Amino acid sequence: MKILNELLELKGVSGDESATTQFLYKYVEKQKKIWNVLPKIFFGEDFHDCLLLKFGNPRTAVFAHIDTIGFMSRYDNQLIPVGGPEIIPGTWLVGEDSLGAIRCRLQGDEEGIFHDFPRGIEPGTCLSFEQNIRIGSEFIEGAYLDNRLGVYNALKLCETLENGWVVFSTYEEHGGGSMPFLLKFIQENSPIKQALISDITWVTEGVKHHEGVAISIRDKFIPRRKFLDKIISIAKKSQVQFQLEVENYGGSDGREIQNSPYAIDWCFIGAPEDHVHSPNEKVSLADLNSMIELYKILMEKL
Amino acid sequence: MKILNELLELKGVSGDESATTQFLYKYVEKQKKIWNVLPKIFFGEDFHDCLLLKFGNPRTAVFAHIDTIGFMSRYDNQLIPVGGPEIIPGTWLVGEDSLGAIRCRLQGDEEGIFHDFPRGIEPGTCLSFEQNIRIGSEFIEGAYLDNRLGVYNALKLCETLENGWVVFSTYEEHGGGSMPFLLKFIQENSPIKQALISDITWVTEGVKHHEGVAISIRDKFIPRRKFLDKIISIAKKSQVQFQLEVENYGGSDGREIQNSPYAIDWCFIGAPEDHVHSPNEKVSLADLNSMIELYKILMEKL
Amino acid sequence: MKILNELLELKGVSGDESATTQFLYKYVEKQKKIWNVLPKIFFGEDFHDCLLLKFGNPRTAVFAHIDTIGFMSRYDNQLIPVGGPEIIPGTWLVGEDSLGAIRCRLQGDEEGIFHDFPRGIEPGTCLSFEQNIRIGSEFIEGAYLDNRLGVYNALKLCETLENGWVVFSTYEEHGGGSMPFLLKFIQENSPIKQALISDITWVTEGVKHHEGVAISIRDKFIPRRKFLDKIISIAKKSQVQFQLEVENYGGSDGREIQNSPYAIDWCFIGAPEDHVHSPNEKVSLADLNSMIELYKILMEKL
Repeated sequence: MKILNELLELKGVSGDESATTQFLYKYVEKQKKIWNVLPKIFFGEDFHDCLLLKFGNPRTAVFAHIDTIGFMSRYDNQLIPVGGPEIIPGTWLVGEDSLGAIRCRLQGDEEGIFHDFPRGIEPGTCLSFEQNIRIGSEFIEGAYLDNRLGVYNALKLCETLENGWVVFSTYEEHGGGSMPFLLKFIQENSPIKQALISDITWVTEGVKHHEGVAISIRDKFIPRRKFLDKIISIAKKSQVQFQLEVENYGGSDGREIQNSPYAIDWCFIGAPEDHVHSPNEKVSLADLNSMIELYKILMEKL
Repeated sequence: MKILNELLELKGVSGDESATTQFLYKYVEKQKKIWNVLPKIFFGEDFHDCLLLKFGNPRTAVFAHIDTIGFMSRYDNQLIPVGGPEIIPGTWLVGEDSLGAIRCRLQGDEEGIFHDFPRGIEPGTCLSFEQNIRIGSEFIEGAYLDNRLGVYNALKLCETLENGWVVFSTYEEHGGGSMPFLLKFIQENSPIKQALISDITWVTEGVKHHEGVAISIRDKFIPRRKFLDKIISIAKKSQVQFQLEVENYGGSDGREIQNSPYAIDWCFIGAPEDHVHSPNEKVSLADLNSMIELYKILMEKL
Repeated sequence: MKILNELLELKGVSGDESATTQFLYKYVEKQKKIWNVLPKIFFGEDFHDCLLLKFGNPRTAVFAHIDTIGFMSRYDNQLIPVGGPEIIPGTWLVGEDSLGAIRCRLQGDEEGIFHDFPRGIEPGTCLSFEQNIRIGSEFIEGAYLDNRLGVYNALKLCETLENGWVVFSTYEEHGGGSMPFLLKFIQENSPIKQALISDITWVTEGVKHHEGVAISIRDKFIPRRKFLDKIISIAKKSQVQFQLEVENYGGSDGREIQNSPYAIDWCFIGAPEDHVHSPNEKVSLADLNSMIELYKILMEKL
């Protein structure tokens, strides 16, 4: 899990993902030689800070967003959120502006967020949760499991994938915006009719640690019933532990597939986490493993 | 009105419209022989659960959404809404899961909705209002007049339509998502510059039963003034009774035309109903008739 | 500044922009002869009420919305907002319906807006703030500086522009809807990778009168960091006074570029105003001048 640790140490608040993409690109270039199938790689300014890998003849695409929630400095010592981070006073934040490295503590609440850095921070500077990874026998804990685990799952999938797109998207935590051009590129080059969203969901009263990867029947948006039935049927026949999620809120890259000008079915499938969007996100290692196993099977059978 | 009764008996909560589309497809296949013009039919997995009919050389498209609001079972005995149904305790709901047919009563309120079915319902199961159609001399009452009447209007139009698209869309009640690919298909095959939304609106202080079909000058979204003027001018010259609607809220498939990458004018035109999104929606039969008459004229003159 | 005065006198509430576009078209037809480069003009029903000018070989597009906020008459003496106008009782409103010219005062508050016109106003009639332009030595004040100043900036740019699109969009104040088809047309005819939003922003605790044009690092949406860095770097090297804006709220035509199916970078750059969306919007003439200067430089260097 060396790569997972490296992914978790990367900073990449929505809008500022270029370093993360550079890292992924280098990793893919190095690792692709030992993967079962050599993917075609799409990368560079035409794709902004996204990265696409095409394996064989795709029927299905997997999307994993690489951006994270965080904060941006405003004027004086004010901060404003990027995406929907938990506002917990005392949380350590890190970043960098032209004057150098920044490490400071978050203060305030939803009404007004501030930092306690002794000097001013240049307006528009991104700050992330300071990382503190803890891996035990049952759980992984730290910041940004959402969605570094989804990215990790996608990279594990690459090792054996024969046919399919693996796509690393940006801006998911803050209103989206890369999915529309990614989908256009995919549909005009090697079109697909099915998509899986490799992302992390919430532990709730109905979705629990250690009960397997969650197949989401709905969040704020509702995938097509026919496609859900197909996925659940494959999952049932597999030996992989899974649970069904039914939520009224939340969204993912799936929203932009739903609203795209292509008839592409989509489903969110991911391990659940506790302490969402905090520095202490917590995921069951068994659930992460189920996620990895189920993606392998689905990408073959769908 | 046999077909209207059959339409009203169909279940088809947003996301689960495939049975409704199958019914419509069979109806169209049977009826098209007696229509004035034989349409070209687009149907099947490439169109998800939508259905498109192309008559002659279209200048204008009519869109009628086939999905309905409803509920979905969550965990324990919880329900969550699909679209925006009225939450009226005691309302009878019906559906089906793998254990068999379901008939139960809604309990709770906007804060938390529950069912009283003796056994658990599988998570993700769709429930609809139990249907109770009442047709009198002046009114039709029942669940899902929105938008079975809009579908009925579109089917009546098919009988004599010479040029135009008639399109049955999905997901309208829950955030949309089929309109973008339907519009792309239309524009790439037989493009149009005008669209009418065949849907049901609200009785308000300014829009009343028995005063004719409503031409909507705006809801949350605003059609282009030039197109509205053209429609109102045609309506005035006709003998059909109509009224003008000006609302601040609400939306329709028109929203997705407005936001589409095509310069297509749109307007919502439909009979008004009382008791919106309840099991007792109520529409004036005279207004429904005005709706049918006005669509015939507009599709010829526009 | 004769043209600016003429622009400010035009009415053009979102949805009803055709007179404004006609005016712009005539102005462009007349003025283009004295511009450095003769643009290709795209205008007419295929573009609804928008207007596009293509100069040379564009790398970047400038978008200026021509619509304004305002009000629409509903039933009885009710008004509903178009966009987000300030509701200030006693404000003079003007418009016209089939019975003639209208001049009346706004009454009520956010809960309910009314007019005091002696006769009824036809439902669906657009009303605008009565114009009262005041130009002093330091400031310009009046209604609709947002976005007549952005349009003025775009027209000034046309005088010397060698390569670039200058685009006049509609509906920006009320949910958008023209940007998607404008972007599609641009990308399919003479594609660009960069866009500047020529619009007016807010005076806040961090953005002040007389401190230069504002380069917006974010509003509700976040442009890509890489593009911001490029713009700020060019601005720093120029002699033009500018300030950086970091806001949590607000949007512009940039939102629709962000969500478009094209990988186009965008940034909002505009002078700040006080008394936003009121009849007394106020902009520093020096800031307006900085805006005009910075656009010239950016369109050359980007």
